[in-house]
Parts: sequence; C-alpha cells; structure tokens
Amino acid sequence: MAKEIKELTPRSENYSQWYNDLVIKADLAENSAVRGCMVIKPYGYAIWEKIQRQLDDMFKETGHVNAYFPLFIPKSFLSKEADHVEGFAKECAVVTHYRLKNDSNGKGVVVDPEAKLEEELIVRPTSETIIWSTYKGWIQSYRDLPILVNQWANVVRWEMRTRLFLRTAEFLWQEGHTAHATREEAVEETIKMLNVYADFVEQYMALPVIKGVKTPNERFAGAVDTYCIEALMQDGKALQAGTSHFLGQNFAKAFDVQFLDKDGKRDYVWSTSWGVSTRLMGALIMSHSDDNGLVLPPKLAPYQVVIVPIYKDEESLSAINEKVTEIINDLKAIGVSVKYDNTQNKKPGWKFAEYELKGIPVRLAMGARDLENKTIEVARRDTLTKETVSIDNIAVYVKNLLNEIQQNIYQKALDHRNVKTVSVDTYDEFKEKIEDGGFILAHWDGTPETEELIKEETKATIRCIPLNGNLTPGVDMVTGMPSKQRVIFARAY
Amino acid sequence: MAKEIKELTPRSENYSQWYNDLVIKADLAENSAVRGCMVIKPYGYAIWEKIQRQLDDMFKETGHVNAYFPLFIPKSFLSKEADHVEGFAKECAVVTHYRLKNDSNGKGVVVDPEAKLEEELIVRPTSETIIWSTYKGWIQSYRDLPILVNQWANVVRWEMRTRLFLRTAEFLWQEGHTAHATREEAVEETIKMLNVYADFVEQYMALPVIKGVKTPNERFAGAVDTYCIEALMQDGKALQAGTSHFLGQNFAKAFDVQFLDKDGKRDYVWSTSWGVSTRLMGALIMSHSDDNGLVLPPKLAPYQVVIVPIYKDEESLSAINEKVTEIINDLKAIGVSVKYDNTQNKKPGWKFAEYELKGIPVRLAMGARDLENKTIEVARRDTLTKETVSIDNIAVYVKNLLNEIQQNIYQKALDHRNVKTVSVDTYDEFKEKIEDGGFILAHWDGTPETEELIKEETKATIRCIPLNGNLTPGVDMVTGMPSKQRVIFARAY
Repeated sequence: MAKEIKELTPRSENYSQWYNDLVIKADLAENSAVRGCMVIKPYGYAIWEKIQRQLDDMFKETGHVNAYFPLFIPKSFLSKEADHVEGFAKECAVVTHYRLKNDSNGKGVVVDPEAKLEEELIVRPTSETIIWSTYKGWIQSYRDLPILVNQWANVVRWEMRTRLFLRTAEFLWQEGHTAHATREEAVEETIKMLNVYADFVEQYMALPVIKGVKTPNERFAGAVDTYCIEALMQDGKALQAGTSHFLGQNFAKAFDVQFLDKDGKRDYVWSTSWGVSTRLMGALIMSHSDDNGLVLPPKLAPYQVVIVPIYKDEESLSAINEKVTEIINDLKAIGVSVKYDNTQNKKPGWKFAEYELKGIPVRLAMGARDLENKTIEVARRDTLTKETVSIDNIAVYVKNLLNEIQQNIYQKALDHRNVKTVSVDTYDEFKEKIEDGGFILAHWDGTPETEELIKEETKATIRCIPLNGNLTPGVDMVTGMPSKQRVIFARAY
Repeated sequence: MAKEIKELTPRSENYSQWYNDLVIKADLAENSAVRGCMVIKPYGYAIWEKIQRQLDDMFKETGHVNAYFPLFIPKSFLSKEADHVEGFAKECAVVTHYRLKNDSNGKGVVVDPEAKLEEELIVRPTSETIIWSTYKGWIQSYRDLPILVNQWANVVRWEMRTRLFLRTAEFLWQEGHTAHATREEAVEETIKMLNVYADFVEQYMALPVIKGVKTPNERFAGAVDTYCIEALMQDGKALQAGTSHFLGQNFAKAFDVQFLDKDGKRDYVWSTSWGVSTRLMGALIMSHSDDNGLVLPPKLAPYQVVIVPIYKDEESLSAINEKVTEIINDLKAIGVSVKYDNTQNKKPGWKFAEYELKGIPVRLAMGARDLENKTIEVARRDTLTKETVSIDNIAVYVKNLLNEIQQNIYQKALDHRNVKTVSVDTYDEFKEKIEDGGFILAHWDGTPETEELIKEETKATIRCIPLNGNLTPGVDMVTGMPSKQRVIFARAY
C-alpha cells in the first residue's frame, strides 16, 4: 500500500500537527519563500473558488455589486479614524521606495535612495480608509444611497505567528463596504450580511455557527458594533468564521462624507463593512476531516464523485470504461461533478487512499464481477462505509447520497458542538471545564476588566454575546456583579 | 434633456480626451488618491467580471487550473534571471518595513525604524520568480509534468505616466505559468494560449487581431520568444492585447529546477508564461464606442437589453409593466440579460441618453400606443437606428439581433483595420503614412539598430512579425538590406 507515504499524524496524538500534515499532504497549500505568505495550491484553490462563487452569488442576490479599490493606502489615511489606526497601523507592510538600481559592486540590485516616496504607502490590511476617501466623491445626496459594494482582494497584516489558512501575512478575502442614509438601514444591512454568512457556513460548509455580537474589547477597530459567527472545531477551540461591522458614522466623519437628505438636511453617511477570508478554508478543513484525510461537504467539493475501475487486463478495462462512460453522462446530466481515474500507472489501493486523503465525498469502484452483476461499489467518505448497489438509476442514487452526506456531516458537527457546550456558574468550574475545550455559557458583568482577567488566567475569550441566547439574568461568576445574559467563552484560533 | 451633463468631447476634436471622458462618465473607473492606481467602479468591474469568467472557462477547457502565489517577491529573486531583473527591477514598489508607530509629536504614525526587513520585498510586477522558486519543490520527475497553472492577481509596475485601464501602476490580470518536459511541448503551449487569447478577443470583444512574434527588442524580459496579439484602435494606434511567452529553460536554470526524464536523464524544465490584463478594458472601450458613449459587444455587456416604459400616468405604467414582465421572462428564458428601468424620478429621454452612454446593445421602449398595437420600439446601440416591431416572438427577435450586433461591430472594426493597413516600400512614404495612423507593412532588415532608428525618427515600433504574413522577401526600406518578410509597424498605446 502506498498509503503510508501520505499518512497523517492522528488527531488524538497531536491535533495541530494533524492539521498541518493534512494541509500539506492533501495538496491544499504550503509555505512560500516569503515569511508568513502561503502558496494556495490548485486543489486548495479549487475549493476556494467554490466558496467564492457561492458567496458572490449570494451577495448579488442581496443587491450587491463588485468593484476594485487600490492595494495601497497613503499612510496619513490610516490615522484619520482614531481607533482604526490603533488596530491596523501597527503590523503592516510599508512601501517606502519605488525603484531598485544595480548594486555598485555589480552584484544584484539595491533600493535606489533617490526613489523615496514623499508619503509612505501601506499595503491594505483592510480597505475602509481608501474606500471612504473614494465614496466622498460618489455621495452628495440621498439619491446616491445606498451604495452596496463588495471587493474580492488580497490584504496583508504582518502577523508574527502564522499558520496555513488560519493566520497568514497575506490572505485572500472579500470585504463589503456599504453606505446608507439612516442608522436603521445600516444596522439592517449589518445583520443581513451576518445572516448571509451564517447561511453560507451552515448550508454549504456544513458547519453550525452561533451568531452574536462582540464585546467592545474584541470589536473591529473603528466599529460601533461587530457582529460575528463563531464555530467550534473538533479540538474544542472556537473559530471566528466571519464578521459584519456596523460602523456608525465613524468613517464618514473621518473622511467628511456628508449627504443631503430628503428634507434638504446635511448629515454624515452611515456605514457597514463585512468580510470572510481564506481562513474559512482552515475552518472547512478542521471541522469534518479525520485521520485518513480531508472530508469535504459535497456542495464545496471540486469533484463530488470519483470512479475507479478495478481490472485485470486491457479488455476488462475497456468493457468497464464503456459502462462508466454511461454513468458519468448520467451523473453530469443531473449536475453531479465526477472524475474518472482510469490511469494505468497507479494501483486501485493507491487511488482509494489518495481520494480519501483529498476528501472526495463518494467513491465508485467497478470491477469485472460488478459489470457482470450490473452492480457497483459505493463508498462514502464521511462514514467510510461501503455497499454494493445496482447500477440501475445509480446517478439518482448518488445524488441523493450526496445530499445525505451533506446533512450527515452538518449533523455530526452540530452534535459535537452540543456535547461540547456547557453552562457553568462558578469560576472554579469554569477553570476546570475550559481545559476540556468547547463553548462555555457563563454570566459576565459586562466590564472589560473582568473579561481581561479571565483571559489572562484561562486563555479563554468571550467569543460573543449570542443574539438568540437565553436572556435570563444572573451574576458574574468572578465578581458576583449582575449580568443580563450568559455569554460564550472559549479558547480560540 | 439631461444629456448635456454627460456630453463627451467628440473623437474628432480630441480622441484622447474623448477616451478619458468616456471612462469617467460611463462610470467605468476613476483615479484614486494613490498616484497611478485606479478605482474600478461597479459598472466597469461588471464588464471585467464577464471577461474574467469567459477567459477562465477557456483556460479550464484547455486543461489549466488556478492557484495563488504570494504578492511579495524577495529582492534577491529578481536578480536570478539576468534579463528579467533588467526589465522589472527598475520601477517597482519596494516594501522595506513591517511596522508603523505613533509619532513622538503625537500626530499620526511614522515608520518604525526598528522594523526594517532584512531583505526588502518587491510587490510582484509579474510572478515568474516566485512561482519558479515554488515549482522547484513540485517537480522531480517527468511524472510531475506538465504543470498547467494560472493565477488571477493584482500586480504593480511603477509607471510614470498612467492612463485609466491602459497603463496604471496597479492592474489586475491573469498570468499562466506552465512547466513542460520538452521544448516542443512548451512551444505548443505558448501558441495554444496565443490562440485562446486571439479567439477570445475576436469572438467576445469583437475586435480583430493580428498574431505575431515580437522582435528581440520588444520581448518580455526573460523570454526566448514573445508572441502577441495586436489590435488597431479607432484613432489608428496599435494596442498589444495579450502576450504569450516561450521562456525556454531560462527560469528553470535561474531557480535550478531539474527533472528526471523517462530515460532517467536529468534536464532543466521548459516553461511558458502568458497574460492579459485590465488593459483589455481600454481596448474594449476604444474599439467600438462613439461620441454618444460606450458601445459594448453583446457577449460582454453586463446587461444586453434595457427596457424603458413611456407612460402618462400610473394606470398606463401598470399596464406596460404587466406586458414587459412577460417579455422579460421570455428574454431570460433564452439566456438574454435584461434590465427594466421603470423608475419614476427620471424621464425617458434621460434614460435613453444614460443607456446609450453605458453601451447597452439593445434598448426596447414601450408606450401606450405600442401596447394597443402589440408593438415595441427596438433601438440598436451600434447603428443608433430604431424600428417598431411586433411583440410576437420579440425575445427571439432580440436574441438574433444581439448576434447581428456582435457580428456587425466585429465587421466594422475589421473594415476599419483593413482600410488602415497599408504596404509601403520607401522610408519617405513610411514617414508620410505613419502620420495617418494604422498598420504599415514594410520590410525590415532584422537589426535592432534599424528598428531603433525608425522608432526615434517616427515614434513607430514594430508591433510584430506576423505569423500568417506574406513570406515574400524584399529589402529594408531604410538600409536596403535583405528582408525575409514584411513586419507590422505602428504607433502604439
């Protein structure tokens, strides 16, 4: 068996190493020669393209259009919004020069000191500032509103400790930036996009999420409110899967963007921003996969089905090829994507292991006896079970199975989260339970001081104040001060 | 008429100003606060998305997959290929620091001198170097070949004189980077992608191109051969619409990428790269548009049809709405994209001018009398002609008309190019004809010196040595030295 060479560190042994092994061995991504920047390999990128396409369709269905703004932000722009500069100016890539010249020693090139920029440019860590400096030219009256724009782009944040997909210096994302005439409309947009994200992650990534609002400590730098969706990984750590920010009039004020309302009154514009990134790839990889490799939800798998022929000789292969061609046509006709691997230089066992590693949801295998009996072997990636079924109506059978798999892995993730979600009332119990991972529902007095103390002592943060949480009041487990509702604590990625 | 406010400088008066007016007034793009970087506005970006989607489909049909490589290139990488560094290291954005800090005077932020990078990073002007440093890890044997990878990305070249879409410091593009076991296969790939580009530009952009090979002077820095497609704009200037490079073993040698062939012999890998960019938007805008605004080929128009109701009162509008809804459903059912503009705060005349400016290929207008007579007014953007036709089968009628428009604007561009293509035999005649614009077929002795002289004296460059040109030999118009075939000269964008 060639499988050994692709073997992963088991999750139980070292979850973190298992993740790294999986990303590398399933050909999803790798580290590049540039510190903290990754190469997204074709198989990983194919999954990202599926994510992009689906999200883009959902953004367009909700009335948004795409545009593109500059990669660079003049340094002075970052300083215009006081909180924003604190959050983003600190770790960023700074362009100071615009030319290289031959080194005087004849070896290579050096920065040309004569080509120093008057004002440094920052590689965008997020685009609020450059976009609001642009919106100033677009908005005069309420007739110019709302602006519902999204951008697909790369951004750079100079992270010190990076991990493939989860935290990289450069990453790919989308950032929506909308402008509205009223506070109510902007808040509505913020929630609408939070719901779009939640629907996408639950229905396509098969990953249940909790919708909530961040504490002031954890807010986006420059936001009035940051809404988020939080997911629980297999190791019990939380992962923030998307954020939607109500920005109030902060950026409109910073860039002096005013409009005339219907009554001829001037006011600052209200705004939102919202984004998800290639970090979703990390969540996708971690949520369903196992020690044999990736487990992909059918809706995001580059191929939903792989077919492997089991044959003794050319004649046998040729007969199988013929039958498989029919099956492929039937599958494609009902919208199932399929790869037929009849390459001859690899053995079936190698192929089985390879496609297991790559997470293809359904594997069909057909041998000489199957051909005779009009059957085919169907293997599910999620449960690793196999059965032999009739080839009559196999395409419909497979399509239904894909739906079942999509639901099953969602249910499995939901069951896992339910088991790993506990309510605690005392800080001692909290300290004990946090070691097991999972979401902890506990009362908090609403102060940043208590939040900080808990973080320092337990490494747990408040993931969110859940939007649909139980509103029974109580007392803070640390200070005994009153609390309006339980909030969600966890250790997080 | 609100039309005046959108009026463009006529082409005959100032072609260059007409182009700038058009890009701004049709809401395609605008200059940003960052020198040389543009903002691509939603309407412009919608056209770019159409271009991207179609090209991406064509790349995938020819066996390519997408991936993503880092934005940054270590400075030393650029120097590894001697020609490459000469071409690209000179005008580029250089990242020297990774942190800002609060200014000691309390105002804004400054570069933190402590956060200086050991090695500067260059914002990619093109990705051969970072990609070949990555391929080194991917390629050991002929079994790992070919690699057929494409990347959609932003790149930066610090241009001194910029123009929206045509030449900007940052631009969007795709860059294919392929690796092959043999020279023949790499050359074949280079030509294949040149043909993909030519098919796209001719069939989708409705713009005829000449396929050719660049002279050594005009080659991509690091290529053995650069193939290109050249188009002629309305003002008689040429525009390079795409390039496909045969890179030989240059980058494999620079990054020491060797493979074991079938016979167990080691050799350097052969490679190609090929790209088109948002510059195509410039070509698209310039090739078909007129003094009333944009003229878009139906295959790339964000909306192919706009419908405008002409009504006196609410009752009349409501009856028209009902009929138009049927027509919209019929159009969508046969794959025609349509926008219905029944907004009440703008007059039909304003809407007509607006959609003319935006280049929507077909405009339908329906009034009370049309409703009575079961007719509709059909206006073509390309010819600016109108006719009243029966609404029976209007969807099919419109679909056929869109095909006719697609062909008509291609034919118009081809006729224009044919008229503006001349053969000349003497340098005097050349100097006279070049003032009229257009392609000039002339003999050239094959030396960079003659090429340079002609460029200096006439501002004309050799656009390409055409692949399907007449192979009759002759003598160079300047030096009288022998020439194998006529080459194409023009002044160019």
